[in-house]
Amino acid sequence: MTTLRDIGEDRLIERLVALVPQEPGAAAGPGDDCAVVDYGLGHDTLGLLKTDALVAGVHFTAGAAARAVGWKAIARVVSDFAAMGGRAERFLTTVALPPETRVAWVEELYLGMGDGLRACHGVLAGGETSRVPPGSAAVISVAATGSVERGHLVLRSGGRPGDVLFVTGTLGGAGLGKHLAFTPRVDAALWLAAQWKPSAMMDLSDGLARDLPRLAAASNCGYRVDRSALPCTAGCSADEALGDGEDYELLIAMHPGRVPGLQPAWAAAFPHLPLTAVGELAESHATTPLAGGWDHFR
Amino acid sequence: MTTLRDIGEDRLIERLVALVPQEPGAAAGPGDDCAVVDYGLGHDTLGLLKTDALVAGVHFTAGAAARAVGWKAIARVVSDFAAMGGRAERFLTTVALPPETRVAWVEELYLGMGDGLRACHGVLAGGETSRVPPGSAAVISVAATGSVERGHLVLRSGGRPGDVLFVTGTLGGAGLGKHLAFTPRVDAALWLAAQWKPSAMMDLSDGLARDLPRLAAASNCGYRVDRSALPCTAGCSADEALGDGEDYELLIAMHPGRVPGLQPAWAAAFPHLPLTAVGELAESHATTPLAGGWDHFR
Repeated sequence: MTTLRDIGEDRLIERLVALVPQEPGAAAGPGDDCAVVDYGLGHDTLGLLKTDALVAGVHFTAGAAARAVGWKAIARVVSDFAAMGGRAERFLTTVALPPETRVAWVEELYLGMGDGLRACHGVLAGGETSRVPPGSAAVISVAATGSVERGHLVLRSGGRPGDVLFVTGTLGGAGLGKHLAFTPRVDAALWLAAQWKPSAMMDLSDGLARDLPRLAAASNCGYRVDRSALPCTAGCSADEALGDGEDYELLIAMHPGRVPGLQPAWAAAFPHLPLTAVGELAESHATTPLAGGWDHFR
Repeated sequence: MTTLRDIGEDRLIERLVALVPQEPGAAAGPGDDCAVVDYGLGHDTLGLLKTDALVAGVHFTAGAAARAVGWKAIARVVSDFAAMGGRAERFLTTVALPPETRVAWVEELYLGMGDGLRACHGVLAGGETSRVPPGSAAVISVAATGSVERGHLVLRSGGRPGDVLFVTGTLGGAGLGKHLAFTPRVDAALWLAAQWKPSAMMDLSDGLARDLPRLAAASNCGYRVDRSALPCTAGCSADEALGDGEDYELLIAMHPGRVPGLQPAWAAAFPHLPLTAVGELAESHATTPLAGGWDHFR
């Protein structure tokens, strides 16, 4: 009897998406940071759609500040839209809570979601509350719709062998509190998408060790990572930088011809945010295996 | 220390929506069946957005057929879009499951969602899977985007004193299996919205006793219900028809001048689906209290 623990998240999703009708001809469906909706000729923008969830005991602890949990619930989704070169605009929240939850906790949660919405100029378009049985974990699901300018869309699948791989910020240390207090890299992502046309981009939610293979597979590439180049959060090892997950930094694949110009322009535009070359995309056979990263069912 | 059990769902939502930014000038936001997005002049259609959730042990039992649960997850959302006079088009699913869940169960769930999507000509645009801690309840959240022709939009808030209240189908008996096997009243709702301009409409998910006061409050009206006229599901009492919930039938408020024409036209268009007058909207002071209905936190 095979359980989710046995097969893991990526294989589960592969099996499930085959069972349901998909958008015909979608630029990106299940598997990229957001789904892309093309409204056809005459529209300068493409639609983006995304859903994401936080679970008590998995993505936050019972002792976490509710306001920070609410912020995180919104900011994770904002980060996914940014990684496509777009913005999240309208949000739908589903909050499933045990009946013994304190009202004050839920109000703090919504205040935190309000903080997140104001920061991205988004609005709550609708919501749903439900109970879970007493003792069950709270689940906070956030869906959003947004848009990206047609010429600024960046997918995971556009990477080519030889593209230089960059990450923003530092990696590792989610457990030290960063996983609740991060800032989605919206300004940086939109600047890159508009001015530097990355070949591929995604946000790092499950750790570079797990997310880079996803970007590489979507681009039909292999990859090489220079462990000594990883920008580790203070106090973190390279293994933690690769595997802790919940960095919410950008992973960017850039054509090598653009790299010499990019680095000084970045330093001028974002003087306080590191941009670090950590490796490159390669032919698909030339891949250093990476250990670590986060699987939701293991 | 106030908990969700103490204040109930409707008061909770009132308190929460005040804490987060809302769409400025939205035709309908939190509180109607779907949120309405107006893309401005030149668009013949309005956007609709909705999220909804099923929780194991609350909306379905451990022994329920997974394929029926998947159907229900999609069909509940389709029913909400229909109640606004519109269609759901693109769906996002979030499935949070304990790691001991059998893969075969999840595949059956997705097959059921596929059944629901094919029935409404919708597509899965994206999804998210997560684990919940072992022993926690599974949560299945479905968000959707769709559209309604500008002239066909029906809100909860358009009812006027004297409007006749109709319900489709029969009420009560959700526990007998109907809550998993219902058919959303899409054809009937779109026909009504296009040809008969209901003053107000909603779908009945929490029972007439709880949902009618919501429609009446949104319309700033009271109501009168003729208990002896309720179309009870075979084997159900009037109390069960009012209070069982999960009927997924339409509740319609219709200007009395349209009623004589409506009834024969309905009988010709939907000969196998009852349409029953059950009361009327009234001045706000003239309200018979209704007992029963479903509160998610009580």
